[in-house]
Amino acid sequence: MPDTRTNAPLCLRAMGSFHVSGRRVLLEGRPPYVRTMSEGGEPVSINPNGSYLIEQMYVQYFLPQHSNGKGPLVFWHGGGMTGATWETTPDGREGWANYFVRQGWDVYVCDAVERGRSGFAPHPDIWPEGPVVQTVDDIHTRFRIGDRPGSYHTDPARRSAYPDTRFPLESFDTFCLQMVPRWTHTNTAMIEAFHILLKRIGRSTIICHSQAGPLAMMLAAQAGDLIRALVAIEPAGIASLAPDAYNTPTLVVMGGNMADDKRWQRLSQKISSFAQQHPSVQILHLEELGIHGNSHVLMMDTNSDDIACRVNDWLSHASGV
Amino acid sequence: MPDTRTNAPLCLRAMGSFHVSGRRVLLEGRPPYVRTMSEGGEPVSINPNGSYLIEQMYVQYFLPQHSNGKGPLVFWHGGGMTGATWETTPDGREGWANYFVRQGWDVYVCDAVERGRSGFAPHPDIWPEGPVVQTVDDIHTRFRIGDRPGSYHTDPARRSAYPDTRFPLESFDTFCLQMVPRWTHTNTAMIEAFHILLKRIGRSTIICHSQAGPLAMMLAAQAGDLIRALVAIEPAGIASLAPDAYNTPTLVVMGGNMADDKRWQRLSQKISSFAQQHPSVQILHLEELGIHGNSHVLMMDTNSDDIACRVNDWLSHASGV
Repeated sequence: MPDTRTNAPLCLRAMGSFHVSGRRVLLEGRPPYVRTMSEGGEPVSINPNGSYLIEQMYVQYFLPQHSNGKGPLVFWHGGGMTGATWETTPDGREGWANYFVRQGWDVYVCDAVERGRSGFAPHPDIWPEGPVVQTVDDIHTRFRIGDRPGSYHTDPARRSAYPDTRFPLESFDTFCLQMVPRWTHTNTAMIEAFHILLKRIGRSTIICHSQAGPLAMMLAAQAGDLIRALVAIEPAGIASLAPDAYNTPTLVVMGGNMADDKRWQRLSQKISSFAQQHPSVQILHLEELGIHGNSHVLMMDTNSDDIACRVNDWLSHASGV
Repeated sequence: MPDTRTNAPLCLRAMGSFHVSGRRVLLEGRPPYVRTMSEGGEPVSINPNGSYLIEQMYVQYFLPQHSNGKGPLVFWHGGGMTGATWETTPDGREGWANYFVRQGWDVYVCDAVERGRSGFAPHPDIWPEGPVVQTVDDIHTRFRIGDRPGSYHTDPARRSAYPDTRFPLESFDTFCLQMVPRWTHTNTAMIEAFHILLKRIGRSTIICHSQAGPLAMMLAAQAGDLIRALVAIEPAGIASLAPDAYNTPTLVVMGGNMADDKRWQRLSQKISSFAQQHPSVQILHLEELGIHGNSHVLMMDTNSDDIACRVNDWLSHASGV
């Protein structure tokens, strides 16, 4: 903790962070309210009227000393998650952010709008609807770690997982610590924020996960000149696009244990249709390579480095980046 | 954007992240509710019953290749902020996280409980009270950038700042993009999370800001053996502790432009009394060194490197670390 034994040093020519996008909202005419700002403190009157800056996006960058010259690589996490998704795996191994820095990529890890260090807008003054939070039980099943609804139990010994799962089961609760609340009306603001980011850092490659898949495809359809290539890890939906509206080199990566999961069966069919309609889209079905048992968060699974290597090979050769 | 011209490479033997602390909350007997998870999607039924893991803390680490051997240096941000506080300054210079990595410190940057990548608990099911969000107007005055209440204006040309302020005024709105909502009942959970962190990474030095000042002092009083030294940047309060309950080597750093600010006048007096009662506490009044105009976020001011250098000197010599 942290394990520094096995890896060569990471040398960076720059690391840091910034926020992009965001818009101003003015509140006025609201009554002040009283809150005690710290336990044991004195109540203070808070004036809610004035400016708020909302719907910005946090971006953290790690630029290797020796860049591979292929331009920025932008990481876009899935629903209920943050940029932490791409950092250390729940069982303590280096995640994809480090992996791709080591391959010479200029890595930008984002917290999409209203997640993590991007902050969120005051509720209910600006956003009427509150956030949605998944239970740990739901995550266990929906991420195809547990093998059926009700597979989670507070006692790890009583959980039921796919026998061949590659998710590090002993670290499942640790993984759930990184899940955060999410809103459900912010897709447009997210796409806008990534669009502004790409205009700022230049033509980029995007690696995205789950919820971000269809959003990144929509961004590619509207600003294809800013996207060199797109890697979509198990997109949770498919954007509805005309065949000629999408020609971004795209790799969709699909894990295992989908046979008993009706939602993923339907999604797989949609993704296959999308690839048939759009020649620039290629699907990497890990099971077809004999790699079984990958979960929905395959970048955290025990074979995460192997999959990262395949993604990097595709980016370095087939994608034309 | 990002400026990589002037700095030597940063070589790290490890970087990554993890979460510590957290507790399980079980919800049961609640009715399911319906939400459309994405704009244009189909409504889905969400079962809120089951486990939630809450009050965990996100920790990101940057361990230099050549450590100075002084143990971990933990950054603890202030209210309404996240670990981003210590990264790049709003005007694009390297922040204190990089500065101290370059001095060989093993740096751990935290998002305190319920901020940033630490996530927050569902409202109102688990936390009845919603978060508090400061207006941009309030930040401008409270952080002693603006010179009076009402000093902020949406038009930068009409803002009123202290004439000698060292805050990079042209980047004030950019700075505000990093502010996040905060809760007001989580002090105990924050202290607990930092306590667990120190037990995990070992005896550490802490650099904290504003809200975190009194909390870090309370932690030092209850677990002094785990804290080598404490640097409190403008603590927003003082813990009420018996003289013999506190002997952690402590440097309190105070900025400028407090003369017209009654809150900071009162706080300054409390901090002076605390230092008189506790011989291990030393105050660095920047104005007494002829350094005028520092704001409440002095680690972002234009002389941030100079102050970091003074802090590092104190840590390296006077503190005994």
